[in-house]
Amino acid sequence: MNHSTKFSMSYHDSPAIWKSLLLQGVKEDGWPWDWTSLGIQPKSASVKARIIAKSDGIWAAEGLVAALSLVAPELGTASRARELLTASSRVRTGTRFKKTQTVCEWKGIPELVLALERPFLNLAAYACGVATATRRIVELVRKACPERTPRITATRKTLPGYRDIAIHSVIAGGGYSHRVNLAGGVLVKENHIASAGSVSKAVTAARRIAPHGLKIEVEVRSERELSEALRAQADVVMLDNFSPKEVRNAVALVERSSHRPLIEVSGGLNENTIAAYAMPGVDILSLGGLTHSVRAADLSLLVT
Amino acid sequence: MNHSTKFSMSYHDSPAIWKSLLLQGVKEDGWPWDWTSLGIQPKSASVKARIIAKSDGIWAAEGLVAALSLVAPELGTASRARELLTASSRVRTGTRFKKTQTVCEWKGIPELVLALERPFLNLAAYACGVATATRRIVELVRKACPERTPRITATRKTLPGYRDIAIHSVIAGGGYSHRVNLAGGVLVKENHIASAGSVSKAVTAARRIAPHGLKIEVEVRSERELSEALRAQADVVMLDNFSPKEVRNAVALVERSSHRPLIEVSGGLNENTIAAYAMPGVDILSLGGLTHSVRAADLSLLVT
Amino acid sequence: MNHSTKFSMSYHDSPAIWKSLLLQGVKEDGWPWDWTSLGIQPKSASVKARIIAKSDGIWAAEGLVAALSLVAPELGTASRARELLTASSRVRTGTRFKKTQTVCEWKGIPELVLALERPFLNLAAYACGVATATRRIVELVRKACPERTPRITATRKTLPGYRDIAIHSVIAGGGYSHRVNLAGGVLVKENHIASAGSVSKAVTAARRIAPHGLKIEVEVRSERELSEALRAQADVVMLDNFSPKEVRNAVALVERSSHRPLIEVSGGLNENTIAAYAMPGVDILSLGGLTHSVRAADLSLLVT
Amino acid sequence: MNHSTKFSMSYHDSPAIWKSLLLQGVKEDGWPWDWTSLGIQPKSASVKARIIAKSDGIWAAEGLVAALSLVAPELGTASRARELLTASSRVRTGTRFKKTQTVCEWKGIPELVLALERPFLNLAAYACGVATATRRIVELVRKACPERTPRITATRKTLPGYRDIAIHSVIAGGGYSHRVNLAGGVLVKENHIASAGSVSKAVTAARRIAPHGLKIEVEVRSERELSEALRAQADVVMLDNFSPKEVRNAVALVERSSHRPLIEVSGGLNENTIAAYAMPGVDILSLGGLTHSVRAADLSLLVT
Amino acid sequence: MNHSTKFSMSYHDSPAIWKSLLLQGVKEDGWPWDWTSLGIQPKSASVKARIIAKSDGIWAAEGLVAALSLVAPELGTASRARELLTASSRVRTGTRFKKTQTVCEWKGIPELVLALERPFLNLAAYACGVATATRRIVELVRKACPERTPRITATRKTLPGYRDIAIHSVIAGGGYSHRVNLAGGVLVKENHIASAGSVSKAVTAARRIAPHGLKIEVEVRSERELSEALRAQADVVMLDNFSPKEVRNAVALVERSSHRPLIEVSGGLNENTIAAYAMPGVDILSLGGLTHSVRAADLSLLVT
Amino acid sequence: MNHSTKFSMSYHDSPAIWKSLLLQGVKEDGWPWDWTSLGIQPKSASVKARIIAKSDGIWAAEGLVAALSLVAPELGTASRARELLTASSRVRTGTRFKKTQTVCEWKGIPELVLALERPFLNLAAYACGVATATRRIVELVRKACPERTPRITATRKTLPGYRDIAIHSVIAGGGYSHRVNLAGGVLVKENHIASAGSVSKAVTAARRIAPHGLKIEVEVRSERELSEALRAQADVVMLDNFSPKEVRNAVALVERSSHRPLIEVSGGLNENTIAAYAMPGVDILSLGGLTHSVRAADLSLLVT
Repeated sequence: MNHSTKFSMSYHDSPAIWKSLLLQGVKEDGWPWDWTSLGIQPKSASVKARIIAKSDGIWAAEGLVAALSLVAPELGTASRARELLTASSRVRTGTRFKKTQTVCEWKGIPELVLALERPFLNLAAYACGVATATRRIVELVRKACPERTPRITATRKTLPGYRDIAIHSVIAGGGYSHRVNLAGGVLVKENHIASAGSVSKAVTAARRIAPHGLKIEVEVRSERELSEALRAQADVVMLDNFSPKEVRNAVALVERSSHRPLIEVSGGLNENTIAAYAMPGVDILSLGGLTHSVRAADLSLLVT
Repeated sequence: MNHSTKFSMSYHDSPAIWKSLLLQGVKEDGWPWDWTSLGIQPKSASVKARIIAKSDGIWAAEGLVAALSLVAPELGTASRARELLTASSRVRTGTRFKKTQTVCEWKGIPELVLALERPFLNLAAYACGVATATRRIVELVRKACPERTPRITATRKTLPGYRDIAIHSVIAGGGYSHRVNLAGGVLVKENHIASAGSVSKAVTAARRIAPHGLKIEVEVRSERELSEALRAQADVVMLDNFSPKEVRNAVALVERSSHRPLIEVSGGLNENTIAAYAMPGVDILSLGGLTHSVRAADLSLLVT
Repeated sequence: MNHSTKFSMSYHDSPAIWKSLLLQGVKEDGWPWDWTSLGIQPKSASVKARIIAKSDGIWAAEGLVAALSLVAPELGTASRARELLTASSRVRTGTRFKKTQTVCEWKGIPELVLALERPFLNLAAYACGVATATRRIVELVRKACPERTPRITATRKTLPGYRDIAIHSVIAGGGYSHRVNLAGGVLVKENHIASAGSVSKAVTAARRIAPHGLKIEVEVRSERELSEALRAQADVVMLDNFSPKEVRNAVALVERSSHRPLIEVSGGLNENTIAAYAMPGVDILSLGGLTHSVRAADLSLLVT
Repeated sequence: MNHSTKFSMSYHDSPAIWKSLLLQGVKEDGWPWDWTSLGIQPKSASVKARIIAKSDGIWAAEGLVAALSLVAPELGTASRARELLTASSRVRTGTRFKKTQTVCEWKGIPELVLALERPFLNLAAYACGVATATRRIVELVRKACPERTPRITATRKTLPGYRDIAIHSVIAGGGYSHRVNLAGGVLVKENHIASAGSVSKAVTAARRIAPHGLKIEVEVRSERELSEALRAQADVVMLDNFSPKEVRNAVALVERSSHRPLIEVSGGLNENTIAAYAMPGVDILSLGGLTHSVRAADLSLLVT
Repeated sequence: MNHSTKFSMSYHDSPAIWKSLLLQGVKEDGWPWDWTSLGIQPKSASVKARIIAKSDGIWAAEGLVAALSLVAPELGTASRARELLTASSRVRTGTRFKKTQTVCEWKGIPELVLALERPFLNLAAYACGVATATRRIVELVRKACPERTPRITATRKTLPGYRDIAIHSVIAGGGYSHRVNLAGGVLVKENHIASAGSVSKAVTAARRIAPHGLKIEVEVRSERELSEALRAQADVVMLDNFSPKEVRNAVALVERSSHRPLIEVSGGLNENTIAAYAMPGVDILSLGGLTHSVRAADLSLLVT
Repeated sequence: MNHSTKFSMSYHDSPAIWKSLLLQGVKEDGWPWDWTSLGIQPKSASVKARIIAKSDGIWAAEGLVAALSLVAPELGTASRARELLTASSRVRTGTRFKKTQTVCEWKGIPELVLALERPFLNLAAYACGVATATRRIVELVRKACPERTPRITATRKTLPGYRDIAIHSVIAGGGYSHRVNLAGGVLVKENHIASAGSVSKAVTAARRIAPHGLKIEVEVRSERELSEALRAQADVVMLDNFSPKEVRNAVALVERSSHRPLIEVSGGLNENTIAAYAMPGVDILSLGGLTHSVRAADLSLLVT
């Protein structure tokens, strides 16, 4: 499985995945009833502001910056409609920023800068937090296994409304989507096997109904289940909660078999444990924690 | 400032704050095109399932459990409409659960149990994660300052769409809302002071327009600004990024003054630093991290 | 309580509070199936139109005029996309217009002028109606009590979907928001006191849970209840359905007390009765009628 | 034109026209963050409440009462889901209520009664206000012209989002819809005539495109235009801003003509002027004021 | 009944009826997760594309082309926001295109061209399919009955969400709307007659409640019912499932009667049968099949 | 590729895919302003109705029938809330109905039966039309190629808003989904190959970014391109616009090759041509016409 992070970021960092969340953030925040600001006559009709990083990380918000100029006209005041708000990223999505660096710049009317500051930061801090944690894992894995490096994937453990943002941010960090949603992949788990009666029956059932373009992946919890999955011609096997040693044995078993599915390892993977699992023969390492437990990036807006 | 966590939880843990997110989660997850499950004929028309905790924590999802029965009829199949899904919490919102404990029980048709499993867990894990972290902070503060214990508050650092869930979860953990949104409180910050020309002018401007039921809170970054805020008759002062010693001096300054506003401390507060700031005279301690960097509670569903 | 109507109107007259209502108006009106107009080939590709006042009043629709240019591209025809519709206010929100005066001017393609005419007028007539009635009350109060003039506030008696428009229009008329909604203020009423057991218990309960930035207001219906509210350290007292004489006595009682809450008068206030209640010591006069019984301003569109 | 108000009210007083507005009202009101109530433990799990009329009027909210039970489950708390809220009208839509009368009764959990009180009253007061004013006009017309009594119709002067509620309320008062929206009727006005070049050309243009089931109505401002409309075979003529005497002449002119369209009178009609226009030969009297300037009915909720 | 297809198309081919469907199409299509395209670096920042017809037909998508430029900014990538997508029709709505002809041209960034291709084609193929089939019927009718040619109308047999698109497309083909929806016309059918007790009672009931601008149309299934409808002064009669000979007799019956309603023929009309029904005296021919069974026009996009 | 149509239909015929379209249909239809029915007092509070087939077909609307009871309470009148509407299918989704057969039965209040009749029929006729046409194709293919029968798949040629309904209906007819949307499959087409530079480069690019569970399908237009696709290790090849003879040669080429991808045939397939393409070795036959050109099933509602 050959792969790399050198691809065009343009699609998935589209304003489309940000705009409605950004606008929802402004509305949820009670704007335009910002009583603190309403009484103050701004000193000038236009201000500049910078988003400053307060720690190192990976930028994942170019599309969000682009969405600012889509949202501004929905909020902008009557008399100064043309100036509203413009913003530009100083960092490309997927690349590194340093503490104290200016990651993007805004220019616009003070009311809109204040209205959009908090919702923008809340979204950007989440996305960059995901990207930064992903990159850390990707680098650990590359270092531990520089040849046939396994790919890092996210899971479906994302907050409702944030699936797209989460996948985008994982990709920005150098990771991959596992499946966008249930319609975009097949993963036979314990409950399916129990319902169907056996691994083989569950695989057959899935193959009978799933679109022909989807591979059949099977989660296994033991070497015995792995053997069943191999017999059932699973296209991918997921080794769930295996120890590194058990993974090594499983890889050997697969490589001896006439049928060579992709091998995914899952369960208990994090910054501390990942290196031990990053071994040749493992194709995919998947981590729920990349998206369910996010440490926000530290960003703040400075009016200049 | 007298307060306690003994209050009715019924309101803010209403299905109203959960239902649309839960339904959005199911849709975003590509249901009903769950190819893995579609081909399998379930063994029985009804199954039981339990949500199991895999670590200790604070429950914050009673309302979410209630929302399950609102969402099920929107998904339920034609021929078995009456059985669909029922669920009940075994733990009250705001109370503790232990590792291995069953926190709630489901009974319903297999298709709906599978459809709702992941979106439910994603939401519950977030809410309980927030509540658990809040409770930890609340207990540290109580221990450090058992008399005139400061109140812990969240901030506006929440993902768009999750403000209500976040506030609810903080309250479930024993904390408080700072302000629901810009319309529900006044907080004069650096940028407002700069625009208005002085602390006093910014306070006057806010008082001139804000509803009469809102207090005027002023963020100060030095003892000099604190003195200005006292002169401007601020109702609340927020000491931003003060060291514990500076806080102590500030409290003394306020208590010597003829005007006694509430005192809030903010900036750099976390599990490691909070005890040093929990001192008599401080009324409020606010932490962005409670809601911007959430460690998901570890919950899983077991079909039984 | 010092206040004035000289503040920036820009925020709360944002297109954000108008756009979706304006678009909803067009859709609800059955456009584009305007059979009367569809068959007529307009004489020119562009027309001018003016909104004319047919009676005196206060303008409150600058933001609505701005929203026209946001809505037009959603309706505009293919071949003339650039000309669509531009509009500008000739009067600033919050200022007076005279009968026969042109309050704003439009220029655009005839189809859009016709499509937007009725929804625009319906909204503008409502907002200006509220602002005009508010201004009348404000002026009566100023005249009756030129020193320590009480502030006029609206209530929560607004049609669903029109809370923002109503508050905006009251402010445009020189009045104030009471509380934007339940999350933005505390008002302990008869039912709360009955549930809690006493004024004091209800106040304590509210203080225990409400954000620290909210004052506690208590509605009282007698001098006895007023005394209880003073003892409970209410931050604001609302004298409900007091006669002017009872108000005078209540003010005296409060001013003798060691605790000086703000005093609000409510109940039965209208153009005929307001002057009698506008007395020094009263801080707030609130009127439901400003928003629940609105006399539309008389405006019409003239194609020129 | 024979007509009467004795018809089934069931359709148009459907919950369908109320439910989303009622729910919007609750959300807009900041619920569930009702800080005033949140801290109070209700004395009992269920309360009764009554809606009391404080003045005479016409009831128009049976469907709104029905909508209460659709909205309650979206808000209801987890532990008491079955009791939530039930409500029943004591008065039928379209019939009279008296001051001090109980118009409907509620029973449910205290939190929901409080949450729904204000949005319900805001909607009911509007609808009953419209119905009451309409009935007053209908009765004046009946008295002035007991034979061949003209029908009273509303106009398109309604707030966006309230077209259905407004038409319903007018019908509840004994009036009629003019046209639901632009797609449901043809009304050739001054601007159309100017664009088309003549009354005759505008009528021809409308007839060429409009569905065959729509009559062609023409607004005329003089006897000359009336003659043109008669020659153009208009199906309905609207006499705009005619004096009573001019109306009488116009009726005579029409009755002498070979073509007998329906005759509508419009412009300047209100409680004071309507009797003078209610004459045999006039088929329709239309009043914008029924819906653009509404005096809310005086209703309040009493927890018992 | 005089009519023609020479009218301005601008109104009903507005972007308003297309925009939300086009955007919904893109979202439903899983964009931005177009895995096939994401990994490919486009050769140039901008491409041109043409929509080519693969068979003859009638164009009905000018407004859809206009909607492209409204939707593009919601999807467009950050770094090339200004170029996005422009598109122009080479054919006017309502006019003929030939096989191999370019019907419109696009220019924009490759990602957006690919994202919008399929949703655009799906909508355009439907609309042009309806228009093309309508035109075929219109021409058959004109040929069969060149004098007093009956008008062709659509019905309410349209997919939810597509009523506006369907009516627009029928008009583009030279047909007419029957009624936009239930609020825009009266059609007394079998069930109404059964409920009311007789044709005459049903007509009276409708006339008593319907807006005065709506004609009363009655569906009749026999000559006896036709006679009743004539006696009840129906404004329009619909001959349902009459043979051509029965229609001829019915027309004669109507023309002998003192009351001359419009005559509509409905039931079993299609390309094979229509000519036999197209006779003088028949005013309207209505066909459900124009909108319920649509043969998509054959269009494809070619990147150049 | 082994497959069969014997699977549980419960999931994908869920009310979830029907409810909002059904409700949208009712609203779009102008209900509750059904003037024709409003004036008629129904003879009884409850009626029965049957949906009758007027031609043979395949039923695909069990879930839609279930959705009726979800939609009814949103429309139902106040005084008879419990009876509203119940409905049950007499035919299982995926099975055959005969002309004159009753496919489902309704019981409820007359107003709701009338309100839901047309939107229900419009949706059911579409879905059953798709299922019926699919079944016809499936049977032709089975007959032509009883061993190793190719699977029939739909495409992405569906109206915005109808993707789920279309896939469901194709499956009900015995066909398969190709890919739900762009996120659920990879299909490298001409434009991708041109952008990437070669088949091999396009396949590599897709494999580099796509989730590991997706197969890589390549559309080829000649034997040369097929050879390239085989060399690039495509998982599926789509033979686009090949003649039956060319398909036969291509199958032979593939079966000689060391790499055996799935073979799909596409382009110009319909009832007349399908048998010639249904040959052993072909795994998938895909037809856009199943969903882009739908002949509605002939269904009608009879009140009994």
